[in-house]
Amino acid sequence: MRMVDVIDHKRNGSALTNEEIKFFVDGVVDGSIPDYQTSALLMAIYFNGMQDGEQAELAMQMLKSGDQLDLSDIPGIKVDKHSTGGVGDKTSIPLAPMIAALDIPIPMISGRGLGHTGGTLDKLEAIPGFNVELTEEAFKQQVKDIHLAIIGATGNIAPADKKIYALRDVTDTVDSIPLIAGSIMSKKIASGTDALVLDVKTGSGAFMKSEDQARDLAKALVSIGQNTGMDCMAVISDMNQPLGNMIGNALEIQESISILKGEGPEDITDLVLTLGSQMVVLAKKAKTLDEARAMLQTVIDNGKALASFRQMIVAQGGDGNVVDDPTLMPQAQFKIDLPAQTAGVVSKMTADELGIASMLLGGGRQTKDDQLDYAVGLELHKKVGDPVKAGEPLLTIYSNREDVEDIKKLLYDNIEIAAQAAPIKLIHEIIK
Amino acid sequence: MRMVDVIDHKRNGSALTNEEIKFFVDGVVDGSIPDYQTSALLMAIYFNGMQDGEQAELAMQMLKSGDQLDLSDIPGIKVDKHSTGGVGDKTSIPLAPMIAALDIPIPMISGRGLGHTGGTLDKLEAIPGFNVELTEEAFKQQVKDIHLAIIGATGNIAPADKKIYALRDVTDTVDSIPLIAGSIMSKKIASGTDALVLDVKTGSGAFMKSEDQARDLAKALVSIGQNTGMDCMAVISDMNQPLGNMIGNALEIQESISILKGEGPEDITDLVLTLGSQMVVLAKKAKTLDEARAMLQTVIDNGKALASFRQMIVAQGGDGNVVDDPTLMPQAQFKIDLPAQTAGVVSKMTADELGIASMLLGGGRQTKDDQLDYAVGLELHKKVGDPVKAGEPLLTIYSNREDVEDIKKLLYDNIEIAAQAAPIKLIHEIIK
Repeated sequence: MRMVDVIDHKRNGSALTNEEIKFFVDGVVDGSIPDYQTSALLMAIYFNGMQDGEQAELAMQMLKSGDQLDLSDIPGIKVDKHSTGGVGDKTSIPLAPMIAALDIPIPMISGRGLGHTGGTLDKLEAIPGFNVELTEEAFKQQVKDIHLAIIGATGNIAPADKKIYALRDVTDTVDSIPLIAGSIMSKKIASGTDALVLDVKTGSGAFMKSEDQARDLAKALVSIGQNTGMDCMAVISDMNQPLGNMIGNALEIQESISILKGEGPEDITDLVLTLGSQMVVLAKKAKTLDEARAMLQTVIDNGKALASFRQMIVAQGGDGNVVDDPTLMPQAQFKIDLPAQTAGVVSKMTADELGIASMLLGGGRQTKDDQLDYAVGLELHKKVGDPVKAGEPLLTIYSNREDVEDIKKLLYDNIEIAAQAAPIKLIHEIIK
Repeated sequence: MRMVDVIDHKRNGSALTNEEIKFFVDGVVDGSIPDYQTSALLMAIYFNGMQDGEQAELAMQMLKSGDQLDLSDIPGIKVDKHSTGGVGDKTSIPLAPMIAALDIPIPMISGRGLGHTGGTLDKLEAIPGFNVELTEEAFKQQVKDIHLAIIGATGNIAPADKKIYALRDVTDTVDSIPLIAGSIMSKKIASGTDALVLDVKTGSGAFMKSEDQARDLAKALVSIGQNTGMDCMAVISDMNQPLGNMIGNALEIQESISILKGEGPEDITDLVLTLGSQMVVLAKKAKTLDEARAMLQTVIDNGKALASFRQMIVAQGGDGNVVDDPTLMPQAQFKIDLPAQTAGVVSKMTADELGIASMLLGGGRQTKDDQLDYAVGLELHKKVGDPVKAGEPLLTIYSNREDVEDIKKLLYDNIEIAAQAAPIKLIHEIIK
């Protein structure tokens, strides 16, 4: 087989055969296919796309290029959740303990943040002592013991994806649905879960700016999951404004604790329960979504969900007392309100720019090696659709530097107040 | 400027700016742009094309990446002709002396053959002693003295094109009109000609299989020429069957001599006069194509065209007597007729496959380093549209091996005889 012929088939709009996809992925990993041929194929895939079977095979071959976690000795249907990333998206943190409180094993492998989006691992590390680097053995043992662990990737997961992603980044082939889907799903399948709920974000703060793109990606992800024998569904949710009220690492843990107590903001609580009830049904612990939602509400009301979170923190070396006293986490030196300049209704809070504001305060990374300040971030007092009086605080800036004029300017530029504005609908669509 | 942004603009369908094109070509030549980014851009160009101004700038930047011939001290309007290549296409060889016989300077830089197509330089080297490797100084002096020289490329012409072509070959981005056009025109502009007539072939033996592709390429070539200040036009001509009756190096020189004497086959004579009269008009030696054609007929009839050819052969070290006695060139040991298996009308003579037959006899190169046998080839006695009796020879195989059963089989497989068939129209269209 010659790589130039594989490129030719895709360039001319054909579906690649399983043999061609295996030849490509193997050649990327062993170095026998030069980067200039790989990038030509990636660009041809960008233009001509891939069929369902093709993109599932691509994900499977990328998966097979590396290590896989074998969770078969953990009893029960293992469920996981993946978000395509957004601003203020701490969903996994309250969601995972709720699921575990229903005795459903949830072995979660998460990532770190870059740019305007935060990462679950970074947020958890705001808890003093919390360790996200467990061995595979310790990870599996913890899931067996308390149904829950959240860690970073272990071993040599999908090395083909690592190489292909590095090339995509410099050849402008990042935003190709089959390539995004293959990258996400190869890693998720490698993590050994039986069922997966996907939260695909759409809007200014999301990778997929348009609803159509988000729907296409959601369908591709679900299709790959189903093609590879994983029970899989997706929720398309809004990311035009931040999710919940808190942005920043310790602040998002604090908000997660509120959600686990049933005291969280309405929007993110609804998303957590929507995703969670899908997971409970996929785990076959409930027959209907309503039943599942009631079960989740019960573990919130009776304190079991919060207890599960504390249990995980302690199991992973962290200070469990943060669930009672979030001020045990790093606290910002300055709290500076941002007053509304006019009266009206909030009509826009651009999610990505508010994420960048938090990043510039030190809460996120501009480059991979940046150190984080866990204390800083934003607390929103108003969301789109809320009335506001002139001078009333729109949000509070949590900062460790006194002069935040640059941040204030950025925020004012990205918050709009109009005569009227409707609240944003958070959950757009369910894709199965 | 970042290459990934240049790729992004093309991928999203924008026209590249002159600065972006210069950045790209410079980066290819100095090695600062890695091959994987170049190939991604080439694939994006394959899909999204280029506008007229863009492809002209690409050709100009590739031209500027290397040496250029300065022919300004040769008086008169210099004209040249370029063919996209075909089987039996010896057009330049009789055409150039006719033009020179009208005192029009014709400094021709030609190429070699590969695969099923022959090359002008290879054919000229069938003449004992003929030297195609002149210094730039000698080349210019010869054009000044006798108005005519045909040589291979000198110096470091368009090194950007060399690098880009090598990548296109292995990344399936060869058949992109703006890339083909840029490659051809960068070299033609570098050769210093003032005016250019292009012969764009279409059909089974041509690079452009369809008429639409050929028209697009012709328009791109003419547009680049005009954008860069060169007087330029194109003829689209048929390459479904071989051009003329002879295929093979010495055989094509022999046919060229016949054409110069006014005794050549009708089809190629018509093409030579069509292209030639355009050249005479571009050189401003005639006002109308009819006038130009009459002038060319005169130098054929009075022997000046043939004398000009003899003069060039002698000037370039060859044996001028071949114009009187073509058997001074290498002669094949065996002449084997291919009889028609049925009676009827010839309905197909697939040009590329007949070119491959000649190549397999030793007349062409399968790889760049193959040695040529100048004597071998095919002489067609019938063309499409000609009636034929059973047993009558369709063509004669000129060979230096006695067993040509493989060649006969290939030829029979690619010549069809039907109840009826119309002759093929040679000249399809004129593009200005």
